[in-house]
Amino acid sequence: MAEAYQKEFFNVSFPAEYVAHVEINRPEKMNAFKEVMWLNLSAIFRQLSHDPSVRAVILTGAGDRAFTAGLDVTAASESGPLSSSDVAHQDTARKANAVRRHILEFQSCITDIEKCEKPVIAVLHGISFGLALDMCLACDIRISTTTTKFSVKEVDIGIAADIGTLSRLPHSVGNLSWVKDIAYSARIFGSDEALQHGLVSSVYQDKKEAVGKALELASLIASKSPVAVLGTKEIINYSRDRPISEGLNYTAVWNAAMLQTEDVKGAMLSGLKKTTPKFSKL
Amino acid sequence: MAEAYQKEFFNVSFPAEYVAHVEINRPEKMNAFKEVMWLNLSAIFRQLSHDPSVRAVILTGAGDRAFTAGLDVTAASESGPLSSSDVAHQDTARKANAVRRHILEFQSCITDIEKCEKPVIAVLHGISFGLALDMCLACDIRISTTTTKFSVKEVDIGIAADIGTLSRLPHSVGNLSWVKDIAYSARIFGSDEALQHGLVSSVYQDKKEAVGKALELASLIASKSPVAVLGTKEIINYSRDRPISEGLNYTAVWNAAMLQTEDVKGAMLSGLKKTTPKFSKL
Amino acid sequence: MAEAYQKEFFNVSFPAEYVAHVEINRPEKMNAFKEVMWLNLSAIFRQLSHDPSVRAVILTGAGDRAFTAGLDVTAASESGPLSSSDVAHQDTARKANAVRRHILEFQSCITDIEKCEKPVIAVLHGISFGLALDMCLACDIRISTTTTKFSVKEVDIGIAADIGTLSRLPHSVGNLSWVKDIAYSARIFGSDEALQHGLVSSVYQDKKEAVGKALELASLIASKSPVAVLGTKEIINYSRDRPISEGLNYTAVWNAAMLQTEDVKGAMLSGLKKTTPKFSKL
Amino acid sequence: MAEAYQKEFFNVSFPAEYVAHVEINRPEKMNAFKEVMWLNLSAIFRQLSHDPSVRAVILTGAGDRAFTAGLDVTAASESGPLSSSDVAHQDTARKANAVRRHILEFQSCITDIEKCEKPVIAVLHGISFGLALDMCLACDIRISTTTTKFSVKEVDIGIAADIGTLSRLPHSVGNLSWVKDIAYSARIFGSDEALQHGLVSSVYQDKKEAVGKALELASLIASKSPVAVLGTKEIINYSRDRPISEGLNYTAVWNAAMLQTEDVKGAMLSGLKKTTPKFSKL
Amino acid sequence: MAEAYQKEFFNVSFPAEYVAHVEINRPEKMNAFKEVMWLNLSAIFRQLSHDPSVRAVILTGAGDRAFTAGLDVTAASESGPLSSSDVAHQDTARKANAVRRHILEFQSCITDIEKCEKPVIAVLHGISFGLALDMCLACDIRISTTTTKFSVKEVDIGIAADIGTLSRLPHSVGNLSWVKDIAYSARIFGSDEALQHGLVSSVYQDKKEAVGKALELASLIASKSPVAVLGTKEIINYSRDRPISEGLNYTAVWNAAMLQTEDVKGAMLSGLKKTTPKFSKL
Amino acid sequence: MAEAYQKEFFNVSFPAEYVAHVEINRPEKMNAFKEVMWLNLSAIFRQLSHDPSVRAVILTGAGDRAFTAGLDVTAASESGPLSSSDVAHQDTARKANAVRRHILEFQSCITDIEKCEKPVIAVLHGISFGLALDMCLACDIRISTTTTKFSVKEVDIGIAADIGTLSRLPHSVGNLSWVKDIAYSARIFGSDEALQHGLVSSVYQDKKEAVGKALELASLIASKSPVAVLGTKEIINYSRDRPISEGLNYTAVWNAAMLQTEDVKGAMLSGLKKTTPKFSKL
Repeated sequence: MAEAYQKEFFNVSFPAEYVAHVEINRPEKMNAFKEVMWLNLSAIFRQLSHDPSVRAVILTGAGDRAFTAGLDVTAASESGPLSSSDVAHQDTARKANAVRRHILEFQSCITDIEKCEKPVIAVLHGISFGLALDMCLACDIRISTTTTKFSVKEVDIGIAADIGTLSRLPHSVGNLSWVKDIAYSARIFGSDEALQHGLVSSVYQDKKEAVGKALELASLIASKSPVAVLGTKEIINYSRDRPISEGLNYTAVWNAAMLQTEDVKGAMLSGLKKTTPKFSKL
Repeated sequence: MAEAYQKEFFNVSFPAEYVAHVEINRPEKMNAFKEVMWLNLSAIFRQLSHDPSVRAVILTGAGDRAFTAGLDVTAASESGPLSSSDVAHQDTARKANAVRRHILEFQSCITDIEKCEKPVIAVLHGISFGLALDMCLACDIRISTTTTKFSVKEVDIGIAADIGTLSRLPHSVGNLSWVKDIAYSARIFGSDEALQHGLVSSVYQDKKEAVGKALELASLIASKSPVAVLGTKEIINYSRDRPISEGLNYTAVWNAAMLQTEDVKGAMLSGLKKTTPKFSKL
Repeated sequence: MAEAYQKEFFNVSFPAEYVAHVEINRPEKMNAFKEVMWLNLSAIFRQLSHDPSVRAVILTGAGDRAFTAGLDVTAASESGPLSSSDVAHQDTARKANAVRRHILEFQSCITDIEKCEKPVIAVLHGISFGLALDMCLACDIRISTTTTKFSVKEVDIGIAADIGTLSRLPHSVGNLSWVKDIAYSARIFGSDEALQHGLVSSVYQDKKEAVGKALELASLIASKSPVAVLGTKEIINYSRDRPISEGLNYTAVWNAAMLQTEDVKGAMLSGLKKTTPKFSKL
Repeated sequence: MAEAYQKEFFNVSFPAEYVAHVEINRPEKMNAFKEVMWLNLSAIFRQLSHDPSVRAVILTGAGDRAFTAGLDVTAASESGPLSSSDVAHQDTARKANAVRRHILEFQSCITDIEKCEKPVIAVLHGISFGLALDMCLACDIRISTTTTKFSVKEVDIGIAADIGTLSRLPHSVGNLSWVKDIAYSARIFGSDEALQHGLVSSVYQDKKEAVGKALELASLIASKSPVAVLGTKEIINYSRDRPISEGLNYTAVWNAAMLQTEDVKGAMLSGLKKTTPKFSKL
Repeated sequence: MAEAYQKEFFNVSFPAEYVAHVEINRPEKMNAFKEVMWLNLSAIFRQLSHDPSVRAVILTGAGDRAFTAGLDVTAASESGPLSSSDVAHQDTARKANAVRRHILEFQSCITDIEKCEKPVIAVLHGISFGLALDMCLACDIRISTTTTKFSVKEVDIGIAADIGTLSRLPHSVGNLSWVKDIAYSARIFGSDEALQHGLVSSVYQDKKEAVGKALELASLIASKSPVAVLGTKEIINYSRDRPISEGLNYTAVWNAAMLQTEDVKGAMLSGLKKTTPKFSKL
Repeated sequence: MAEAYQKEFFNVSFPAEYVAHVEINRPEKMNAFKEVMWLNLSAIFRQLSHDPSVRAVILTGAGDRAFTAGLDVTAASESGPLSSSDVAHQDTARKANAVRRHILEFQSCITDIEKCEKPVIAVLHGISFGLALDMCLACDIRISTTTTKFSVKEVDIGIAADIGTLSRLPHSVGNLSWVKDIAYSARIFGSDEALQHGLVSSVYQDKKEAVGKALELASLIASKSPVAVLGTKEIINYSRDRPISEGLNYTAVWNAAMLQTEDVKGAMLSGLKKTTPKFSKL
């Protein structure tokens, strides 16, 4: 199965039943991203979204040093809207439209993680700068290690972060003062702050332990009814963005179909019998 | 007065001036809910909302073991949309509409706690599973004990929680990663996590102490101007769901009438005189 | 330059390059606010917003005792909508409209802090009651000291806080239960709670240290590209109030122009050369 | 069946298969409304909403002179928030809250027409003032006669219309200039203007013809799949209030269940066979 | 009184009780606008908004030829963001921010017409291009003459109209296909189309008749309760921008104070007595 | 160039400078749609969106009889969610999710017309049923002929229309009563009604004349600054879905870049010189 997922700069494996593991694989460059990488990332997550053999996903970075150091600045300076060689558009407005198209496409690739119908757990270790935050904020669950170094790095290259960090942070973390502190200053912070203010939900000793724990959690989630987990992700994300009355109504319409699943009967029966329910593929 | 509130499976008492105490009373079943109970709960809170003798409410569960174990699964399997005996609607669409109506009505009963014009303080002790979260998230203030056991239990019976938990959690708690961790895994967690991530605002040694503290807080709130407290609840709930500019404008319209209250003069005078102001009934 | 900013009850100074320091200066009244003060505050922040020599602002209160004790109740009881001498409008509806206009204007003055294009850091020390919260919640970053005393004081004078606290708190802090606890009870709390629940992002020993740290942070921010920081503030505030998809689209349109700045090239070059970039004025 | 619907001041009949006819029946007072009437109206429409024998509803006024002259001003001046005898609340704020509760309840009764799961066709004849507009705007389809006299009458009694007209008009009619013209001036206008600017969708010679045409249209609608018509009403109303992207997503979730109905197969088969499909009850 | 309103390029008169007439007065340039004019327009409408002697306003253009030909392109090419002499900002991003500030300020001036608490009736005659539409769409009621020439002119100078036309048109007119036809093509159209598709609500023979009719309508509105008319404008504008449930709730809060007005009693009494009610100033 | 656009069931030609003509080409089946067709339609419009040689598009149906008869019901009954052979998902919930995915993908294809950066003009002739409305409502401008037959046909096959009609109609047409009349009854109506109520903006004698007029309009639009037209489309669509204040702010940010275009200078100069401006490609 892994073969179907072969894409440059990524390893995709299936370490447990119904669990996929996506590894960013460019460790010699601290997993820094260039364009082909976000296109590949998107393709992988769009495929995982509809793959009936997958019920939970973990996302990690290869190597000891970094989840990802963020955008590959050297590559970005050679092509794309940040490169000085981009002379195709001399007119400010035309260039602006080209930049806008580029950002929308880049954002869309990262948002494919959020749109993936299955929960995604990010394990952040080592250097986790810039795009690392854009990406992990599009994941569902964030865990890290005692030595992770985080930074909303973009202002250091003259940019307001535009691939999702600034939009998702205020809805993911409960201390707006801290959100602005780290976003305006680009300062490096550790897992203690990340946990205290709500950016991650647990911290482990090192990458090995963290990946192990992520795998455990993914396996636990994968053992549940995929119908129930799909609905839970959809409704939380919908409700996060809207008034509570809207969330409630959407839930009722969603569950109008979903409560008719066989999984409910199976799960209730297993609960009474103290057996482990088996759920068919989604 | 308590008589007017007599409803099966609930005790309503008035332990202090202007304070009502609603106790879920089905301890032999760990306060598990069946349909009559949410209908009664709704009736009680709709009445409390307009009762001029009430300015604050506490909500607790009878017995030592549980605030509530959630939905009474046995009862649910016998009638209602989760029961296999529900053969009234053979057509998927017609059944879906029946399920939707059922969920909307159930949600509406729990939302009556949120709509109650008076602050409601939930004391969560022991088992607090499933519907316990739906209910306490519709309350204003949540406190718990060192031994409370929480779980967003619904995925364990094949369901995306549909009575409010998934809509209210992301607006009540500041760590979205943790919200998804507990919602996808249905794992049991304690008051330490609940406090750390913002689900409860204080934790006490045991139920007795917690109820005592809830009563103290309710009495304190009940000593304030009921006009001011009503407006505070209304505006926070309105603003939670909307952009800040919307919240500000609504506040101005709300207070256009409410600032004309005699309570302001009374409170300011008492402030100067160092006396305790008395406010007339709402 | 400070001269241009001379306004009664305020000191404005420029303690570091590109950093402005606004001090509320009515220490003999614990910096309590009367109407002229919020008008002056607004004028100062509107000017700072467009001042090319300013890239970050700190806001503090003069004296040892208070950031501000809030509204000057004595002054408020003599004129304005809370005063008993306000007999201009005998008709409830006409008076309501006058009150509404007054609140909207007052809110608008405080919101000018939020609208200021530059980051604003509030240092809360000593008594920080009522309007102190309305104001600091319109700032970007909040820091305090070990002895700060906070209170959402308004219910104590019969009022639902109407200058922004109730609208901004639920979007700034990640524990809604705690938000309602402090808002309904008007109880005094300290920096430990404020930090735990996310109202402030750091706490220092005393005012001197806190102001020093605020100045450091302001200087750090002021050393960054002002284009990038402006965009970061604009996008976080926009996104805080809206669904994530809206935030993403707005970001793309915003950066369509802003990525064309020379600052990006300067910053990237400096990054490669390990030099400190210099950015031209905004 | 009509018996179950017996309520004072209303006649409910069933003139055709699956079609209900609700007649406001107080012709001696030009069908003017007092409190018991909107309570009864609400009860009737809540019952119709879930009645499987009903698929379309027409709403008319008894007598030759009026659909309804609106609020019964004499009754209103004797009790309720407009009456001078309402001295229960001497404090402006407390009275304001009582008024607010009253309006919300009144609005809720009229909105029950909009919430009715079945299409409602209003036939406006003769005097159609004030509440006539609030009510017909909560209906789905509005038709009138050549002699109907319309007026948004409320400003003539010193009130901004508060039972729905001002909220629904701008979403029902495509000429905002005309909306404000009629709402500010309370002037009387006829069916020609109402049709030209989009308040009604057809005009007939007299009441008899109009009621006949309404019955024809109701019968036509009642011959369609009730699942399809329910969804059509729900999605149009949902979409009217929201961005198009929201409407599209909601439609997909709604139809996820509803497309599984047997009605589709039945209708498609009938289409091929040129027979009239029969749909089971909703 | 007119003196208080004296501003260059405008005549303000008071042709009837409680009615103000604002005339754009630069007929030699077809009432084309330069910066001082929108600043003055804004100042006039902010003053009218709170002026107790004014209950309705009409807005017209001086001379026979034009309501206004729109932006004074010659002036715009000499200073401001469209001028080539604007070399202050060489950096694209810094220039973009200057342009943004300029547009926001310009928009804000025109929006002051919409924010004016009193109804505003625009009489469009002759050339009504570009800014003519931005302005009249911020008015409440639009009337025109048989010879008015309309055009959304901006694309003809390379601009997407940015002072309100494109935002207000889709909420003011009920034919979105027509809105886009006129906005993309900048073609000139007449009052027949404007009336047919809902841009104006009535058309008169010539300017004289139209102004006379506007004055009649303004006088009629001014004879109503100013409390009722204020609320009607506020609620329609609020509701136009929001879901109906939001509009209904806002109405209830608004009227909680406003129904307590003496105007209701006065109006109801006058209704019974068949006398003309007199309302005190707002 | 047309070659790049070759897709089965479509003809794409370029009848005038900067104008593309997309023709649905399955006349032997009255241009009824099967899955490959909406996928191809989407591919064509995504390409047109970024094609610098295209500034306006017209969309027509081949043959004399129909723009399109809508969904190819025979094909739909053989595969896809409406087919009885779809037994892949036996579980209601799993089938519901498959249906949801299918609808979202289908909607997304049609929405690609709306997302196309260039204006799209639909010419509706002959039979224009079901999907004809979904599609033309995603276009910018709709014109028709005296013999066009329209129908929101979906309820006739047991479905609430789910590809956009029900979401877009209430925002495109100014008579909500008429919208519901046609949507609930599926009745066939003509261009007279379509024009009267705002579904189309002009009607011509026959298809030939209508296509000619569409080409004229497209050529006119294509002669304008593509920067200005792009912004006009983007801002109208954005504003249609949001409050006016949101639309205004977005406009200011959008034009911050776009006003810096050379097109403004070119257009203004041409205006003065009475020459025809030439704009470079977008």
